[in-house]
Amino acid sequence: MLLKCVLPIFTIANAVVWSRSAAHGDSKHNKLNKEPQKMSVQRLSALRAIMSSQPRPLAAYIIPTCDAHNSEYIAPVDARREWISGFTGSAGTAVVTPSAALLWTDGRYYTQFEQEADMSLWTLMKQSLPETPTMEKWLVSNLTEGAAVGVDPYTFSRDEWNPLQSALTKHNMVLVAVGANLVDEARKHCGEHIPCRPSNDIIALPLKFTGKCAGEKIAELRAKMEDKKASALVITALDEVAYVLNLRGSDIEYNPVFFSYLIITPTAVLLFTANELTAALCLQLAEEHVHLQRFPYDSIEEHLRDMAKELSETGCKHSIWLSSDSSEAIHRAASGADVLANPLNIISEVSPVSLMKLTKNDVELQGFRDCHVRDGIAVVRLLKWLHDEVDGGKEVTEIQAADKLLEFRKDEEHFMGPSFSTIPGSGANGAIIHYCPSRDGPQKTIEKEDMFILDSGGQYMDGTTDITRTRHLSRAPTSEQKSAFTRVLQGQIMVGAALFPQGVKGNVLDSFARHALWEAGLDYAHGTGHGVGHFLNVHEGPCGVSWRPYPHDPGLKPGQVLSNEPGYYKVGSFGIRHEDLVETINVTKETEHPRAAGLQGDFDGRGVLGFRTLTLVPHQRECIDASMMSDFQLQYINNYHKRVFDTLGPILKERRLHEEYTWLQGECAPMIRA
Amino acid sequence: MLLKCVLPIFTIANAVVWSRSAAHGDSKHNKLNKEPQKMSVQRLSALRAIMSSQPRPLAAYIIPTCDAHNSEYIAPVDARREWISGFTGSAGTAVVTPSAALLWTDGRYYTQFEQEADMSLWTLMKQSLPETPTMEKWLVSNLTEGAAVGVDPYTFSRDEWNPLQSALTKHNMVLVAVGANLVDEARKHCGEHIPCRPSNDIIALPLKFTGKCAGEKIAELRAKMEDKKASALVITALDEVAYVLNLRGSDIEYNPVFFSYLIITPTAVLLFTANELTAALCLQLAEEHVHLQRFPYDSIEEHLRDMAKELSETGCKHSIWLSSDSSEAIHRAASGADVLANPLNIISEVSPVSLMKLTKNDVELQGFRDCHVRDGIAVVRLLKWLHDEVDGGKEVTEIQAADKLLEFRKDEEHFMGPSFSTIPGSGANGAIIHYCPSRDGPQKTIEKEDMFILDSGGQYMDGTTDITRTRHLSRAPTSEQKSAFTRVLQGQIMVGAALFPQGVKGNVLDSFARHALWEAGLDYAHGTGHGVGHFLNVHEGPCGVSWRPYPHDPGLKPGQVLSNEPGYYKVGSFGIRHEDLVETINVTKETEHPRAAGLQGDFDGRGVLGFRTLTLVPHQRECIDASMMSDFQLQYINNYHKRVFDTLGPILKERRLHEEYTWLQGECAPMIRA
Repeated sequence: MLLKCVLPIFTIANAVVWSRSAAHGDSKHNKLNKEPQKMSVQRLSALRAIMSSQPRPLAAYIIPTCDAHNSEYIAPVDARREWISGFTGSAGTAVVTPSAALLWTDGRYYTQFEQEADMSLWTLMKQSLPETPTMEKWLVSNLTEGAAVGVDPYTFSRDEWNPLQSALTKHNMVLVAVGANLVDEARKHCGEHIPCRPSNDIIALPLKFTGKCAGEKIAELRAKMEDKKASALVITALDEVAYVLNLRGSDIEYNPVFFSYLIITPTAVLLFTANELTAALCLQLAEEHVHLQRFPYDSIEEHLRDMAKELSETGCKHSIWLSSDSSEAIHRAASGADVLANPLNIISEVSPVSLMKLTKNDVELQGFRDCHVRDGIAVVRLLKWLHDEVDGGKEVTEIQAADKLLEFRKDEEHFMGPSFSTIPGSGANGAIIHYCPSRDGPQKTIEKEDMFILDSGGQYMDGTTDITRTRHLSRAPTSEQKSAFTRVLQGQIMVGAALFPQGVKGNVLDSFARHALWEAGLDYAHGTGHGVGHFLNVHEGPCGVSWRPYPHDPGLKPGQVLSNEPGYYKVGSFGIRHEDLVETINVTKETEHPRAAGLQGDFDGRGVLGFRTLTLVPHQRECIDASMMSDFQLQYINNYHKRVFDTLGPILKERRLHEEYTWLQGECAPMIRA
Repeated sequence: MLLKCVLPIFTIANAVVWSRSAAHGDSKHNKLNKEPQKMSVQRLSALRAIMSSQPRPLAAYIIPTCDAHNSEYIAPVDARREWISGFTGSAGTAVVTPSAALLWTDGRYYTQFEQEADMSLWTLMKQSLPETPTMEKWLVSNLTEGAAVGVDPYTFSRDEWNPLQSALTKHNMVLVAVGANLVDEARKHCGEHIPCRPSNDIIALPLKFTGKCAGEKIAELRAKMEDKKASALVITALDEVAYVLNLRGSDIEYNPVFFSYLIITPTAVLLFTANELTAALCLQLAEEHVHLQRFPYDSIEEHLRDMAKELSETGCKHSIWLSSDSSEAIHRAASGADVLANPLNIISEVSPVSLMKLTKNDVELQGFRDCHVRDGIAVVRLLKWLHDEVDGGKEVTEIQAADKLLEFRKDEEHFMGPSFSTIPGSGANGAIIHYCPSRDGPQKTIEKEDMFILDSGGQYMDGTTDITRTRHLSRAPTSEQKSAFTRVLQGQIMVGAALFPQGVKGNVLDSFARHALWEAGLDYAHGTGHGVGHFLNVHEGPCGVSWRPYPHDPGLKPGQVLSNEPGYYKVGSFGIRHEDLVETINVTKETEHPRAAGLQGDFDGRGVLGFRTLTLVPHQRECIDASMMSDFQLQYINNYHKRVFDTLGPILKERRLHEEYTWLQGECAPMIRA
């Protein structure tokens, strides 16, 4: 799945992206909120009354789309921006003043916003347009000197807090960390129920899937803490807690995480969560050499403050290590900012856990390879089924196709659920990059003359998948579609077959994916690749392939998993995307890699990196114009298809899926240039 | 010429580059300083005595390679780092403490530093190595709390000042702007002569070369000032002053600039310079609707301070607009920081002059095209002459080749001098990226079996050139050389023939230049392209093509001039670089461009950009392996050679240079695949 609908390239120089990266394919919880628009007045009034009754009355209150862990997907309990605005899109930041209510969001959501929000109360700030002021600019231009701007410091990372604070200070305004979330307060005032924070079952992931026991991970982190002279490491990202402890939850849809914080000190491991830790879990943790101290989820702030006081009283210099993505609230508590005259030193930088899980270990990598075989079977079954249905004149809606795919995935071992909401875009819907069909109302049937994009993925105990394939149902694409399909494929091959020096950041590969499209004046408005977690979030930082460097990308090394997903979208007509997951591999003359034989150097000892494709599903041969491909590209795709068939074929045979076997054989047959 | 020897790619994630971009091919003034190393003790002692006698004694003093205008090349008067250290390299920052003397420089200069500096007194900080602490890190780790670090605020831009100040403050240290340059003081103490600041003749560039009169430029800047609500624009970069006024000087070698500052207010234009303005100059300026007020160069700081006071006394809010590249000293004076309780607001961002001159007007572009024809003639004559000499068994040294090229350039109309010190690297010297042969001592003869890199450029009244060609003198390269030569050429073609959306930053093109090399595990440790001034600095910001975005690159637009210069260097053996200048052009189906016919879109209205090559000198056919090239690449190079011959041939004929004509014809003959 695409990382996010990014701004058009030409605005990146001057635009500040105020949409938080957030849930795609607006998930179910978004539907909770579809009350009549008139409620908006009441809600805004309640919020404004609370804003004006603050010790220092607020001239503006900011409501990002965010939880306290900077999660990409959020739970219903955290959908505050949605509640106040009525707008259910996955990205946007609301600002409410005594007289105005504004919402910044990107081009995907302009229409939806105007449908869902009460436009007599709300102003849409189209952040993709260069003329739209950023939230920061709007605040300093529209508020008067001395104004106080409020925000719940749990919903702002320090990386976001600092620049806004500086900008406001420059204009004699102040950014106030408001203790309670004022939208929650307003919700209570309106007598409305706030959903509970989920605390679902937690499972322990056995060593055969994780490859490294939790105790070992903690020991490594402690060694890094010693290097940094850090007295504690505070882990706030939910996937990082899950990774360190080898635990998985289900508190956020699609993401196998649970609400928690983790503090590691040289001698203790403290877990803050409301979720139950069963005896079996505790036993496994003990086996993995972790002796957890358990605290209530809500006590993190108090605990950090007490810890700061205690450390301060020792008289020695102490530093606390935090991710700069952690919330401002946690940063303050950890330093003891409110209780100490000389707060502790804070090391606020990229999280060491995020860097640790970026490089997958051998067991994780093998898991990725294994689950991609099973996932390939499921997707191949779906594609064959879909063609059969459409060929047989049956009506299949986009949602039925997605549901059928889930059925097939459920047949596969270790399958735990989808890794995101499937994007099944048929015809013009395929051109809507983050399309998500609604289950309410009339549904789109996949027509025989449609191009059909299917972007989906699975969570497996041994890995996470994310694949997009584009099909033309009649197998007779137009020449425009065929040409675009081929160019997107050429881009994917140019990335997939690239060799490059170890240590370069992902952005240097981005233009390879666009080269064949650019030759024709075509492009796509999203990044080319994102990192993928191991049975964790399908979007995982801090690396990725886009036209600008990811700020914390430490440079590519062997053992990473990334997506490779160029596309092309003709609005109102059709969309094309080819998405594989790939692993980064060290390439020498001996490696099985199409360019290995041509190696003359190893970048002066830096090492040669390349990719190995994990995804195993063929591209539709009828949509590929072999005459546009170079010999190398044709060979590449034929080799890939051979590998797909050689890997999946025997499994289909073993499972007595003979029709699927024959179908796949045809799909993987070598192509020749006419 | 390459922009600078950059750090190896793999260190960019963590390294802060402390070498100021500075003179290449250490120019003549560097030789002034070759005194015995024992002088170093005396000099350091003098500096340390002055450091300790400051009102607040300094725990460290920083000496960058820099002048007050953030110039890339500096005049001898500003070569303070060189004087204190004895090290004549073009890049490096010295830090002197009471007990230590350190110099941060990059990989080009490790050996030279150890030869030139007294290693019993100085410590080399190898900044290309990841384990070397940055200057900032070193200071905070090695000085004690409360330490004062001194720097001449004229030698630090605000962009450099602010982060260092923040880092020091965080560690309870202070960054002190020392009024007088302490190295100058020490120099006086040692009884040594400080070179005078040059104030050479200034010429006025007529409208037929500039295309836009100075009055019009100033009117445009005033319109921008009105938009920004700026009461004054302070221009500190020497090339920007020269550009705005359509004047040129010769105070810095290779750069046609003069020492000056310029202040533009809504009603006045104030020039601060020690250079003479003749009556003729003043007349032309008046004709261009500029009425200059003239002030001494050294009075800028006082004048800015007085202006700040005056503006402040009006009681209204005033802002002063400065480039963030301007020195900390000028920033302070402009805001009235030292004289006002409430200093003026400073708008410190990319200079509007730098953005204005980035896009060349039609007259400037035509000038670029014209001077490249003449420059092509000169380089072709040199290459033929060189082959003839070597074939004839004559000894030609690298310097003789460079001198001969200068002779040929002097034959060309409007030639004003070289645009940088020629890099004539023969054999292993070709692999030294910033090679500059010394005129002292034994000199390298260009051997028949050598690969020979010739990187040179000219300043012409109508434009600036910068070209590198690589030749094998016997015309029989090894297969390794031929393969590398071809890969570098493929990279140059991939950039030269690329189409891309208008507005992308230059970094997105960088990997195209490396693709063919990367396929073989080869790379080059410098950027791919730099902006070029119009009869101004051969390296001109704020755009460029490198693996990371230039921070102030506003995105590529038609009418820019860039270099396209991939390379390959086998240390100890040979070097290859192909450098063209190119102009950015808008491409439609009707444009003369190899990919125009294939256009299907225009990037949704953003517009299609491509390049047109300005440089007109053939590549050596014997070094190109046609079997490695695609049909497109072969066609591209044949078309280019045809264009070179069609353009230069008639001129050679007209000048009765018949042998050169025939030679060029052979060099430009079409290649076919065997």
